Amino acid sequence: MSTKLSVPNPSPHLIKEAERVKQASILLGQSTNEQRCEALTEIANALNDNTDEILKANLIDLERSEKEGLNKSLLSRLQLTQTKLKECIEGVLKVSKLADPIGHRQLHRKLDETLILERVTVPLGVLGVIFESRPDALIQIASLSVRSGNAALLKGGSEARATNQEIMNSLDKGLRKTNLGVGALALLTTRQESLGLLRLDRFVNLIIPRGSNELVQFIQDNTRIPVLGHADGICHLYVDASVDIDKAISIALDSKVQYPAACNAIETLLIHESVAEIFLKKSIPIFSNAGVTLKGDTKSQVLGVKNLATDEDWSTEYLDLILSIKIVRNVDEAIAHIRKYSSRHTDAIATNEKKVAEKFLLSVDSAGVYHNCSTRFADGFRYGFGAEVGISTQTLPPRGPVGLEGLVTYRYFLRGDGDVVKDFASGERSFSHTDLPL
Amino acid sequence: MSTKLSVPNPSPHLIKEAERVKQASILLGQSTNEQRCEALTEIANALNDNTDEILKANLIDLERSEKEGLNKSLLSRLQLTQTKLKECIEGVLKVSKLADPIGHRQLHRKLDETLILERVTVPLGVLGVIFESRPDALIQIASLSVRSGNAALLKGGSEARATNQEIMNSLDKGLRKTNLGVGALALLTTRQESLGLLRLDRFVNLIIPRGSNELVQFIQDNTRIPVLGHADGICHLYVDASVDIDKAISIALDSKVQYPAACNAIETLLIHESVAEIFLKKSIPIFSNAGVTLKGDTKSQVLGVKNLATDEDWSTEYLDLILSIKIVRNVDEAIAHIRKYSSRHTDAIATNEKKVAEKFLLSVDSAGVYHNCSTRFADGFRYGFGAEVGISTQTLPPRGPVGLEGLVTYRYFLRGDGDVVKDFASGERSFSHTDLPL
Repeated sequence: MSTKLSVPNPSPHLIKEAERVKQASILLGQSTNEQRCEALTEIANALNDNTDEILKANLIDLERSEKEGLNKSLLSRLQLTQTKLKECIEGVLKVSKLADPIGHRQLHRKLDETLILERVTVPLGVLGVIFESRPDALIQIASLSVRSGNAALLKGGSEARATNQEIMNSLDKGLRKTNLGVGALALLTTRQESLGLLRLDRFVNLIIPRGSNELVQFIQDNTRIPVLGHADGICHLYVDASVDIDKAISIALDSKVQYPAACNAIETLLIHESVAEIFLKKSIPIFSNAGVTLKGDTKSQVLGVKNLATDEDWSTEYLDLILSIKIVRNVDEAIAHIRKYSSRHTDAIATNEKKVAEKFLLSVDSAGVYHNCSTRFADGFRYGFGAEVGISTQTLPPRGPVGLEGLVTYRYFLRGDGDVVKDFASGERSFSHTDLPL
Repeated sequence: MSTKLSVPNPSPHLIKEAERVKQASILLGQSTNEQRCEALTEIANALNDNTDEILKANLIDLERSEKEGLNKSLLSRLQLTQTKLKECIEGVLKVSKLADPIGHRQLHRKLDETLILERVTVPLGVLGVIFESRPDALIQIASLSVRSGNAALLKGGSEARATNQEIMNSLDKGLRKTNLGVGALALLTTRQESLGLLRLDRFVNLIIPRGSNELVQFIQDNTRIPVLGHADGICHLYVDASVDIDKAISIALDSKVQYPAACNAIETLLIHESVAEIFLKKSIPIFSNAGVTLKGDTKSQVLGVKNLATDEDWSTEYLDLILSIKIVRNVDEAIAHIRKYSSRHTDAIATNEKKVAEKFLLSVDSAGVYHNCSTRFADGFRYGFGAEVGISTQTLPPRGPVGLEGLVTYRYFLRGDGDVVKDFASGERSFSHTDLPL
């Protein structure tokens, strides 16, 4: 009856590590904001002190990976320069300055005279983090974990193993200077362990993948632990009939070319048939100048788009300077297309009609639905969260760009004075349900 | 690479139904509060008008099920009397009076002059509901769906098929009188369909099981769709060293006997060794009078508990007048036991020491952690939610008793005036991130 996963059972060693980290999470869960901030300061100091060792270890990783034929873009992600490391350390201190996500009272209610209910944010417990190549991700995610009172099992790419080990030494040294987090962060080193991690439902409360779409998809398909992330990012812009053509072109261009490899870049442009001719006439040269290859349906080909878009294009995330174009009869066809092909990440409409915009915003079920602006704004920093833990395309919260609040949950605390349900069932007492100040 | 589930692929007919319901959910997602309340009034009227037909159908189900040998407790759950149906209809009207969970602005922020970000609650989309025996569950869950703007695929037990069909006719009739929800509720009739439902990730956003622990466990193990519910409810009460013995006994008794079949009843009592003797001396006769069988570890047997509790007892949900007892050295041992065996539903401490209580509340990672009151308070109505969609024992929100807010998610709306990221990347513009009134 149980879900069969194509990943191995966790090894006894991994289970022991997980138990240890889970145990450490209990202490971390009782820590004060000051203690957690102090831990981050100590971690930043330790990273500063160990800079030489970390950079030396990074050179070892780089040399070995180059010999092993790692491709250029992965090598550049692997590389830690003095400047990059310094930025990371500043990042740790920035995380310590974010608002504390723990201890927020979300509900405060007197159920009856002596019976007070609270709903308060608490850490999730243990995070499972799987990241590829970039050792700076280890520093960033470890600091977000500590900030939010969570312990973590961290698995980096084997190509970065020497660097990650040196970073881990600094994290440990920093934590040891405080009294709260010893053993709260553990580095997993083998691929076998990262697979086993996916089956640690008993110990791990959230998995955060940092890597390729394929990595995220594999993880989502092979674990019952909630995953904070997204695989594809197939985003759309729909250009409506009543529209400022220049603004719409500017939005389309920004959404495609400002950073085409980003998950929030658009892959498909939907254009209302009544403005298709003028929109394409004006925009084809602009896209061409920006190096964008356009692929269109047969209608847009008649209007000058050179390459044909097939059905496959509507579900392809190019992550490149390629844009598919479809001409639609109305906003309903646009909505239907988006609901069919969107990754539910971010989709936008360009229109001057408020009513059409509102219909679009209420009908497109994506984490972000935008009106008259670029999809590239979908980002935790741009939203003002101060940090981005990930972008989630699931339906349930947290979705969209997720800040620190994605690393916490809540617990109901009920405090009484010997109160029993029998007295309420008998009618001797009754619930007043009076909300108290938060 | 994909998760292998031991459930069949959905049939073409089921997929068609799901597509139809998903389509209907778009209209429902744009409805106003008034429209949804009106729909509930119309549903209540239709149920009232069809009372005779529903009760007649229920007799058919009862007769057939009795012949087929359905056990007594299931027969009583299946039975709809005039009074019970009237109460259900009143329940529908009560749901229409709950606060609207849709359209709440949770975040309102000016990113820059023309760029306004909102986070607003929206319906989840389509609920998948699987319930056993009780046809009143169909009425209740359908009204919660409509109230929260969600469409639903509903699968009841085959023993209630005639009743469910008559109820469904009323639901449809009610919805048809409004303009919003035609086709938003669909009744699935075969077991094959309810299994296929578990694989409809593309269409169904949340599964709500209403039935036995086994049903819930099977569903949780066999779907990648989020499940709102809990299988076991292994709850604990820990009686600390510094405690008012009489109050502690009263809490223990209420937590066990007030309704032993409930998920929030305790199964295990942990007692600090320094008060074990006096607590057991006083409470054994009281438990005995209440018909409770006590099973204890060896230490508590020395103090008068007759039956032996084995390791298996610590992870058994009796749902009956049986209570296992363990004597512990201190609060840490109690916390460790609870973290190991608890279903993370509701666990309580009885103590006069505030410091010990706070440690317990911060260390026990259950949805509800209580101080000096009965675990039986863990209930959406007792919390003042006005409705209970389910009780969730997962880590991520929503957890614990879940009201209507468990049936909604949020969406980010970003409205601009041709704003593009390029201008912010170039430094021409910068984010102001000013919070606006909610």
